[in-house]
Amino acid sequence: MSYDTIIRGGTVVTASDTFKAEIGILGRRIVALADHLGDAIEIIDATGLLVMPGGIDSHVHLDQAGAPGIVMADDFASGTRSAVVGGNTTVLPFCLQQKGQTLREALAEYQAKAAGKCHTDVALHLIVTDPTPQVLGQELPGLIAEGYTSIKIFMTYDDLKLADRDILEVLDVARVHGALVMVHAEGYDAIRFLTERLERQGKTAPFFHGPSRPIPVEREATHRAISFAEIVDTEAMIVHVSNRAAMEEIRRAQQRGLKIHGETCPQYLVLTERDMDRPGMEGAKYVCSPPPRDSDSQAACWEGLQQGVFEVFSSDHCPYRYEDEAGKAAPKGRQSFRYVPNGIPGIATRMPILFSEGVAKGRIDLNRFVALTSTNHAKRYGLYPQKGTIAVGSDADLVVWDPRREVTITHALLQDGCDYTPYEGLKVTGWPVRTILRGETVMVDGVVTPGSSGVELRRPA
Amino acid sequence: MSYDTIIRGGTVVTASDTFKAEIGILGRRIVALADHLGDAIEIIDATGLLVMPGGIDSHVHLDQAGAPGIVMADDFASGTRSAVVGGNTTVLPFCLQQKGQTLREALAEYQAKAAGKCHTDVALHLIVTDPTPQVLGQELPGLIAEGYTSIKIFMTYDDLKLADRDILEVLDVARVHGALVMVHAEGYDAIRFLTERLERQGKTAPFFHGPSRPIPVEREATHRAISFAEIVDTEAMIVHVSNRAAMEEIRRAQQRGLKIHGETCPQYLVLTERDMDRPGMEGAKYVCSPPPRDSDSQAACWEGLQQGVFEVFSSDHCPYRYEDEAGKAAPKGRQSFRYVPNGIPGIATRMPILFSEGVAKGRIDLNRFVALTSTNHAKRYGLYPQKGTIAVGSDADLVVWDPRREVTITHALLQDGCDYTPYEGLKVTGWPVRTILRGETVMVDGVVTPGSSGVELRRPA
Amino acid sequence: MSYDTIIRGGTVVTASDTFKAEIGILGRRIVALADHLGDAIEIIDATGLLVMPGGIDSHVHLDQAGAPGIVMADDFASGTRSAVVGGNTTVLPFCLQQKGQTLREALAEYQAKAAGKCHTDVALHLIVTDPTPQVLGQELPGLIAEGYTSIKIFMTYDDLKLADRDILEVLDVARVHGALVMVHAEGYDAIRFLTERLERQGKTAPFFHGPSRPIPVEREATHRAISFAEIVDTEAMIVHVSNRAAMEEIRRAQQRGLKIHGETCPQYLVLTERDMDRPGMEGAKYVCSPPPRDSDSQAACWEGLQQGVFEVFSSDHCPYRYEDEAGKAAPKGRQSFRYVPNGIPGIATRMPILFSEGVAKGRIDLNRFVALTSTNHAKRYGLYPQKGTIAVGSDADLVVWDPRREVTITHALLQDGCDYTPYEGLKVTGWPVRTILRGETVMVDGVVTPGSSGVELRRPA
Amino acid sequence: MSYDTIIRGGTVVTASDTFKAEIGILGRRIVALADHLGDAIEIIDATGLLVMPGGIDSHVHLDQAGAPGIVMADDFASGTRSAVVGGNTTVLPFCLQQKGQTLREALAEYQAKAAGKCHTDVALHLIVTDPTPQVLGQELPGLIAEGYTSIKIFMTYDDLKLADRDILEVLDVARVHGALVMVHAEGYDAIRFLTERLERQGKTAPFFHGPSRPIPVEREATHRAISFAEIVDTEAMIVHVSNRAAMEEIRRAQQRGLKIHGETCPQYLVLTERDMDRPGMEGAKYVCSPPPRDSDSQAACWEGLQQGVFEVFSSDHCPYRYEDEAGKAAPKGRQSFRYVPNGIPGIATRMPILFSEGVAKGRIDLNRFVALTSTNHAKRYGLYPQKGTIAVGSDADLVVWDPRREVTITHALLQDGCDYTPYEGLKVTGWPVRTILRGETVMVDGVVTPGSSGVELRRPA
Repeated sequence: MSYDTIIRGGTVVTASDTFKAEIGILGRRIVALADHLGDAIEIIDATGLLVMPGGIDSHVHLDQAGAPGIVMADDFASGTRSAVVGGNTTVLPFCLQQKGQTLREALAEYQAKAAGKCHTDVALHLIVTDPTPQVLGQELPGLIAEGYTSIKIFMTYDDLKLADRDILEVLDVARVHGALVMVHAEGYDAIRFLTERLERQGKTAPFFHGPSRPIPVEREATHRAISFAEIVDTEAMIVHVSNRAAMEEIRRAQQRGLKIHGETCPQYLVLTERDMDRPGMEGAKYVCSPPPRDSDSQAACWEGLQQGVFEVFSSDHCPYRYEDEAGKAAPKGRQSFRYVPNGIPGIATRMPILFSEGVAKGRIDLNRFVALTSTNHAKRYGLYPQKGTIAVGSDADLVVWDPRREVTITHALLQDGCDYTPYEGLKVTGWPVRTILRGETVMVDGVVTPGSSGVELRRPA
Repeated sequence: MSYDTIIRGGTVVTASDTFKAEIGILGRRIVALADHLGDAIEIIDATGLLVMPGGIDSHVHLDQAGAPGIVMADDFASGTRSAVVGGNTTVLPFCLQQKGQTLREALAEYQAKAAGKCHTDVALHLIVTDPTPQVLGQELPGLIAEGYTSIKIFMTYDDLKLADRDILEVLDVARVHGALVMVHAEGYDAIRFLTERLERQGKTAPFFHGPSRPIPVEREATHRAISFAEIVDTEAMIVHVSNRAAMEEIRRAQQRGLKIHGETCPQYLVLTERDMDRPGMEGAKYVCSPPPRDSDSQAACWEGLQQGVFEVFSSDHCPYRYEDEAGKAAPKGRQSFRYVPNGIPGIATRMPILFSEGVAKGRIDLNRFVALTSTNHAKRYGLYPQKGTIAVGSDADLVVWDPRREVTITHALLQDGCDYTPYEGLKVTGWPVRTILRGETVMVDGVVTPGSSGVELRRPA
Repeated sequence: MSYDTIIRGGTVVTASDTFKAEIGILGRRIVALADHLGDAIEIIDATGLLVMPGGIDSHVHLDQAGAPGIVMADDFASGTRSAVVGGNTTVLPFCLQQKGQTLREALAEYQAKAAGKCHTDVALHLIVTDPTPQVLGQELPGLIAEGYTSIKIFMTYDDLKLADRDILEVLDVARVHGALVMVHAEGYDAIRFLTERLERQGKTAPFFHGPSRPIPVEREATHRAISFAEIVDTEAMIVHVSNRAAMEEIRRAQQRGLKIHGETCPQYLVLTERDMDRPGMEGAKYVCSPPPRDSDSQAACWEGLQQGVFEVFSSDHCPYRYEDEAGKAAPKGRQSFRYVPNGIPGIATRMPILFSEGVAKGRIDLNRFVALTSTNHAKRYGLYPQKGTIAVGSDADLVVWDPRREVTITHALLQDGCDYTPYEGLKVTGWPVRTILRGETVMVDGVVTPGSSGVELRRPA
Repeated sequence: MSYDTIIRGGTVVTASDTFKAEIGILGRRIVALADHLGDAIEIIDATGLLVMPGGIDSHVHLDQAGAPGIVMADDFASGTRSAVVGGNTTVLPFCLQQKGQTLREALAEYQAKAAGKCHTDVALHLIVTDPTPQVLGQELPGLIAEGYTSIKIFMTYDDLKLADRDILEVLDVARVHGALVMVHAEGYDAIRFLTERLERQGKTAPFFHGPSRPIPVEREATHRAISFAEIVDTEAMIVHVSNRAAMEEIRRAQQRGLKIHGETCPQYLVLTERDMDRPGMEGAKYVCSPPPRDSDSQAACWEGLQQGVFEVFSSDHCPYRYEDEAGKAAPKGRQSFRYVPNGIPGIATRMPILFSEGVAKGRIDLNRFVALTSTNHAKRYGLYPQKGTIAVGSDADLVVWDPRREVTITHALLQDGCDYTPYEGLKVTGWPVRTILRGETVMVDGVVTPGSSGVELRRPA
């Protein structure tokens, strides 16, 4: 047998195993793992390097419509470009239904935004903001059957939040038709109450974004979301968990046998509320929701990753430029933190941060790294075994990783559409040196292959 | 010194002490406790009996306006008459604000309902259902200052429930002005979701009242209410807790230092969901909210009482007649459990049930009985030390209790305005033989003194 | 009626109540509490002061035999003298059985030590160190029947520790005959293991007393003792709890319905391991077991007191002189912390410290102060209602307390036999101004009445 | 490239992945996994079957010396024969040090017992019963360095138990030299106390084995062992956990970051104490320690397996014949349960029971099955990656499994040296149809290949 590509000399890592083997690729798929494979059109030398499943980032916002005037810094082209720089081969961005829009209209819009532009494969989550009877009764069941098997809902934000009753209805549709609901768990009313009080007190700087949504606000919404899933008798994924109290709510649910899953993100491991307290509007660069907390919260997020409470580690990439008409430092945000766009970039830095802070510092092993950055995303969101592992028959989506490479993160490295990175200056050990998508190298040594070979993926209900 | 009344020969019980002493009463107050007091106008022989602080029932619904056509079975006359039969000297009914009504209008209405009719002293809680800026900014602060220092809010019921934002605002007013908020913690949206599903499935019998509001619905609302109190940084009382999960939420809150108080009621100790499964509409006699649960829930409520998680034990007396135009067995309730009036009578049976099931069966001691039925109510709701104990200077509100008297509860004994008791046939050991209000005997051996000497009490903020 | 003594003008505090009343004393007992009492031989003016039950300190070591050459700083005379200075009227010292000795021999010895010397009433706990069949089968049952209803056992110390099997046997005797076992819960083997390692490493200064018995050593022994009580199906009191982990073990036991009681002491509220790190041998002044820990441990001990996990607050008064042949600073202790006598004085400072740090700083209320320092001791150790409260019929054991008196603690104030106090320089608010034992003033303004009127108390099984 | 053997048509399962692939074996190792491999000397058709890593049973007693007259039913030949029947390729039996014996003497003895007889590969755990300074200081470090990196200790049994101090010392040696300590956690003294009481009460039937060592006895010892590992700062494996309370102790330890591992066994999933209550001596067939408990304990053991608290699932195969001079039904055991040999057979039934009750009933997935029966054993005990997975470079230790085969367990199927199975009559779905050890088929369709190719394995410290 001969191969299109052989990756030779590397150490293969999966979610459970670590072994020396050559990887034989034919067409888009891995067809052999062996001591020695013969010849191939292309031989990639991975001597001294790790070969891992390409990263899957299941929480990414690209080209998403926001409030009037607010423009996301990344479209599907720049966002997925930055993703491959960071070792990813699949991302799962959101398709946002606007109020008044049908889901199919929204989907057509995001498919058009993505078409022909993606450097990674892409699967879309549906954000439901307007759960009309038509949406719940017709569109969602149909779209789930067509492969849109993950639904995101919000418990906060003026234009996005669902009422409790609607949350229950969406969960019920997901249960009946076989989809997974992702929940942004922060309580709208409490945030409004606190925000207005802070504003009355003149506390409007970016730092007060944190006090406007303290830990009990997130814990309460987390408990509420879990309870609704329990009442409906279905699964749910609590995304971007930031602290111990919310983590413990998820753990308690898991321990009583509920299928509640958890996600955390790099910002909750390496940033804190102090970052939002930088001079002038600099703090706005770190404004995201939930906000970064404190050192005990960081420790709790690590525990959640180590002990299996959190199943996936995502970026929640949600980039807004600092210098922009309606960006992080725009006049409106200077009036009050309330108007600072919520979200920070991180699609390229997700894997290096977890590798460096986690694997290199001995907090997690390589196999858990793979599980958290790739395999578990694929399994949870219906992409496995096509994606998420290095096994015979799977797509040849791979990242070749230099575990010893020391890099100081600077924005220029990341090739996204933003104008800063919140991790500027962070030193990491370990870096992706090659990204391979379905057998094709799409990035090598930071150079992204021209052209965009990413396709849209559907998933079984 | 001479006395109006001496109670001689009894064993005095307070929340911490049990001792033989004579009690000397002058005017309305206790003025002496001693080995031997001299003479008095009236000598009451309590030989072989317990003398305890008169019961205080801090959760009572009397003559409260409901949905059109629904009439409560007790007005202030019959309700407080039944209260003194059961050994109580003070009750705290609710003053219900109707939507569109001012609090002062509502208060005037309930004061008129109570005036001249009460056999016990009475202090009113304010139920806020329409928290307009006027109510929050003007009326509540004023009424708190005038002695209405407890506010009840509902998280469910069509006409009563507050939005989350309003709950936060009411808690904040209470914090600033020094009132205590009582919370009915069941989640409206989840109940509606489940109710409609049950109805679609044809599950409309009284039994399905329970499944329409299962334990997670109560636990979620409890967690939410606690979180809101935590966010606002104030106290709260979670009333009528029915099960382990909700009890544990309160305990967890107490353990992390929050001032969250808990209450449970007789129905959660001796009834279960099976009682709602009786033939025909009989089950409707047990429909209250939260519903009685199961044996583990009963055990948990006992643990809450024994271990101090629950500070007060109240009746949640909320009487509707079985045979009545819009009563428990009315045609509308036969269509669906949803229309069965929620609530059961229990003002007279509260103390005997706790004494018999608690003290006589060795689950709690006499002092805890006094604390749970009287002292803690007085302390928590601002009536102490005028009410709630046997001490020099306190009102001579007393119950003389025969700890060995065996009684089979039947409705006829209770002298309320209802036409049944959910505890029909329950055998109890221990019964009140005399109730004394401010020095005056208002009940002896089941005979209520004619006339109504009860007054309205105000409380300091 | 006339009285020997009336205490007039004070505010009476019990474990549940606070009220203005005059207290009438006739002979040894309280015979009346009233608004106004007539005349008496002696009128004590308590205007502006609190009148509380005299302190009961249920954990006190006096004139106890130690290792050769080691002499306790207080005998029954000096120890109880200091006790009354600190507002106490009853203390419970230990009668220590030496190996080879019968319990009755030991008892005779301690009765002789106490006879005619005590300024407070005294009840003796039996320390069992040699549980021969004779001791378990004959002596203990007999002594329990005679009123020695509390037994102390040790899980550590060379000459005191019991094997696990013996602990089980003692608990079983206590269960059958109706006594309460107090447990010093630290694990001998682990302490030895760590001590020897520290000594091998040259870590011999007093500071290393702490690391030789870290929190897990105490937690393990606590869990073991609780388990043994559970296996035997009886009660136990875990004494001198120093930290959160041990407190939580007790709380967990209580929550699953076991009758496990807890005690903590002043040293765990206001000292820490840093105190043992003072220059030279100064740290030895703070060496006791378990050792003072850290600020989180202090917080946990407060939580235990506030939330009812700890039922009694005792001194664990165990005084050794600093300057003494075999004292804290003796040559042997300079060789290794292992030889520093374990224990610190505190009989006089217990109540002022709890009042000042607890009541004056708002952590606990007056009633809990009385419960923790007096009432609960009496109830738990069989002295109630003779001791531990202010009620008709109880002994007139009282402390008159000035809640506003500010005192800086210095050793000279305390009138004990030691040569230092670990609380030197601590400022407290609130101080005992008069101690009354069975109607007789035994201390006023720091002056102890000559003579020793204390008697030995027996208790019902 | 050509292969000695190709396994064709099967579904390969690892601890994280499930995929169709052919497995190419050359010599003893797996050298290729591919869509299609060419030719081989032997082609094994696995169409429709699962191919999984051969089972590793890390808790097995074979030919172990017991009390005088008591003979284990399996030697290394029969025990490993039964193991391959059950799909295992590696077992870890114990080398038991007798009191007075050196470890090297014991090792020589067990190596002789094993030599040339084994059908599986074998790695020995060292049971330390006589931890002399020589053993702790010389032998253990030497043996660990030579590859004996796991040590078993007992907290109970007359001839096996270690004192607490010795447990600490063994843990410390393991920490310093890099071994893992396995702990049998039941408390000796409590068991003796209860056993003697039961015997005094005439409760001597096999059923009373359970009440002689109730759950708190196991929980206490578990807590103690965990605490000692924490104090020493090292890892430990708590073996054969039988109930919720012990499981929760392990979980709590894991959650506070300790490296405490847990194991459970088939008997705790499918047997209960009622099995010991069978007529006559039949109950003796189920006597093992800890004893099987109740249905909540079974549920807890499942939760431990599902939620990752238990990392390995072993048999604790410890076979004694029922009909034997000193067997389960021998005269001495008829006198008291105390003399019934503790232990039951289960080496062949371990994997079928977990597959049927776990995978077939939907409690765990295939990957967790592989992790629990093979991969985690290899990783924890130092055999990975040579053993425990299907990966390039690993030994070709495989089990071919028919997931649909329905089998009623009878003793005759198991081919061990015992005369009964406690699982007689249990119906299972899923059965091993071929076992392959280092490339050689050692069992096919229940027929064991003659000859014994097993070797002894050493492991890096």
